[in-house]
Amino acid sequence: MTHPAELSATDAASRIAAGTLKAQELAEAMLDVIARREPGVRAFAHLDPALVRRQAAAVDAAPAKGKLAGLFFGVKDVLDTADQPSQYGSPIWAGHRPRTDASCVALARRAGAVIAGKTVTTEFATRFPGATTNPHNARHTPGGSSQGSAAGVGAGMLHLAFGTQTAGSIIRPAAFCGAVGFKPSYGTLHRAGMKVMSESLDTIGVMARSVADAARAMSALTGLDHGPAEAPRAPKLALVMGAMAEAGPETAPHMERVAEAARRAGATVTPITLPAACDAAFAAHAHVMHMESAQALAWEIDHARAQLSPAMRTNMDWAMAEPPAKLVEARAAFAAAQACFADAIAGYDAVLTPSAPGEAPEGIEFTGTPVFNTLWTLLHTPCVTIPAGTGPRGLPLGAQIVTPRGQDAAALMWAEWLRRALG
Amino acid sequence: MTHPAELSATDAASRIAAGTLKAQELAEAMLDVIARREPGVRAFAHLDPALVRRQAAAVDAAPAKGKLAGLFFGVKDVLDTADQPSQYGSPIWAGHRPRTDASCVALARRAGAVIAGKTVTTEFATRFPGATTNPHNARHTPGGSSQGSAAGVGAGMLHLAFGTQTAGSIIRPAAFCGAVGFKPSYGTLHRAGMKVMSESLDTIGVMARSVADAARAMSALTGLDHGPAEAPRAPKLALVMGAMAEAGPETAPHMERVAEAARRAGATVTPITLPAACDAAFAAHAHVMHMESAQALAWEIDHARAQLSPAMRTNMDWAMAEPPAKLVEARAAFAAAQACFADAIAGYDAVLTPSAPGEAPEGIEFTGTPVFNTLWTLLHTPCVTIPAGTGPRGLPLGAQIVTPRGQDAAALMWAEWLRRALG
Repeated sequence: MTHPAELSATDAASRIAAGTLKAQELAEAMLDVIARREPGVRAFAHLDPALVRRQAAAVDAAPAKGKLAGLFFGVKDVLDTADQPSQYGSPIWAGHRPRTDASCVALARRAGAVIAGKTVTTEFATRFPGATTNPHNARHTPGGSSQGSAAGVGAGMLHLAFGTQTAGSIIRPAAFCGAVGFKPSYGTLHRAGMKVMSESLDTIGVMARSVADAARAMSALTGLDHGPAEAPRAPKLALVMGAMAEAGPETAPHMERVAEAARRAGATVTPITLPAACDAAFAAHAHVMHMESAQALAWEIDHARAQLSPAMRTNMDWAMAEPPAKLVEARAAFAAAQACFADAIAGYDAVLTPSAPGEAPEGIEFTGTPVFNTLWTLLHTPCVTIPAGTGPRGLPLGAQIVTPRGQDAAALMWAEWLRRALG
Repeated sequence: MTHPAELSATDAASRIAAGTLKAQELAEAMLDVIARREPGVRAFAHLDPALVRRQAAAVDAAPAKGKLAGLFFGVKDVLDTADQPSQYGSPIWAGHRPRTDASCVALARRAGAVIAGKTVTTEFATRFPGATTNPHNARHTPGGSSQGSAAGVGAGMLHLAFGTQTAGSIIRPAAFCGAVGFKPSYGTLHRAGMKVMSESLDTIGVMARSVADAARAMSALTGLDHGPAEAPRAPKLALVMGAMAEAGPETAPHMERVAEAARRAGATVTPITLPAACDAAFAAHAHVMHMESAQALAWEIDHARAQLSPAMRTNMDWAMAEPPAKLVEARAAFAAAQACFADAIAGYDAVLTPSAPGEAPEGIEFTGTPVFNTLWTLLHTPCVTIPAGTGPRGLPLGAQIVTPRGQDAAALMWAEWLRRALG
């Protein structure tokens, strides 16, 4: 029999609902994994085993079991928790105790999830990293900004975890850590109780052990059936390679292998070029991200500047020195790309594209570049990364499926199809 | 010479910049007005004259004077303030002291504003009202949800105030209280530090003594020139009467007078019918508002239900019982209306439409209906209400100018043109 800690979220929650597994047994098994892995991985910004045990006991005592009953759900530390500190990866917020849970956290609890801890975020979900390491090789970054969530799932310490993405902060770290990452359509999960930086971009999503687990979490959180449905046939995939000049040498052959496996399973895989409006929007991303973030952090900039990282100060100073009209223009570039994207891939079921530039970079100071993610974030489309083998250093590589905005269940369906095609 | 408290924001800030008025003199004059009017109007959820005086002294001590130097700026109590309680109109949040200012509050301070106090909001900016009265007749509602902000400006206790609008929460109370209200294009002012209810709808805006003052505030907060520019000619106005079945008997003749005055000043005023997509979106408003609010308040619903008002519990229960797909459909209805609105009024400079159903209703239990506002809120368009005479009970009536999303400066320009046309 599978060790309880190794069960998928779907299997674990089903057993708890059926009464064949206690949430408290599962919690002990998961806490054992955490005790073994956390000293090296450092995924948690806050971890309180006693609080975790109390939550598991409450799940066992509850008469009805939710869809996420007893599952270990990590919460990126840009999302508020009423019972745990919420420090946003910044010394400015050290010791902060919110009065309430973020919306998505409260909804996860309502479905029976055990909030296993707060996971490490880079500073305000931007670039300056925490101490988290890649669970597959501690000398490498787990990526960012949702680094604790990705590493916690990748290390087997969590079934599920919330991440947030402004540039590439869910998909890239999930790929680096060998996890499934799902960024839903913009606006799917309410941001109440999130430390929002860019209103136009920030999107809450989940990390999971499998596509089915991500879908289960999204179904529980939204009430909408995210499947994953059985694919009715092999897909027509549009291959978008993106910013290959910034990719590692492993990425082109890796994507060829992925495409070949998809073709063998019956898919068509057709390289396409996106409209120029997408290039213009891609180029406008930094203006929206940094200029909106500088608005969001106006208090911190004016009252606690010395406690911002040097990189953050540089970015905020740049953003505040740019002409305000640049933000208007950059948002217009986003809108133009959003307006043409669905048409640009009409005739295809989904886009297949790299999840990241390659394997996780060495060192934990640099979380890697989000160039393979920013376009999809600004297009507000659902994105799924699935584990797709390893690279030359033995570290995980991902493959990313993207569908038009609103086609979240389809993105998960085709991602699950691709996972099976990859074998 | 005008009494300092009666100066427009524009004049007061100019005198402070020129050194002919001290912020502390202005503060004393404004505090005198507050001492006289506040006991009857009850606009403030929190008021600390000593703190106000310290802020004014700091403005006088600062070497450079911002565009809002010394102005009394009220802050609706759904927006966080680091130095004042932020209680969101709910006993659940009694005594809450945020660590930071909301983005818009920090930006107002950066421009030199004196945060004069927190203004009364209905419960979480929804329907259940506070104790604020209409400054023109204490037996009447000031409207809501931004009731303290509208009443505070209308009573002369504030130069400027922040409001927020999910349905009709800026424009309606401003009209009821004889103030100028400006709801910018959706997304113009960052919502970091706001107790957001509906992500798709909530928009921060300002109340002011004049269109020029509102424009000055918006210019200071965004860095973008909001004018108001001199209109190059008389406008072509599209007249949209809206939900007249819910209007008071004074509204049809009032709008005829406004249209006639505009025509006399050279405008064309043409009744138009909006596309059916706008009607469908109008009908979908309640689903988006309440279903997103129920997500936002998930923690409060699960942990503090007894402290929600009965009306709020009813709305939240309704929202949680609706099929989740209704929210998806309702958002799609919004998107369809947004996509066709600019074309629907092509050939016109702006829409002229009622600000509210009529004069403020009697009693302070009911803040009035937002039926003349919800369409523009969900269309994400800029809206300006200007005072436009009084009704049969001697209470203020407004007139509303709407332009396509992004044309904020134009909305203010045509509103100022209309103000002059009304004489």
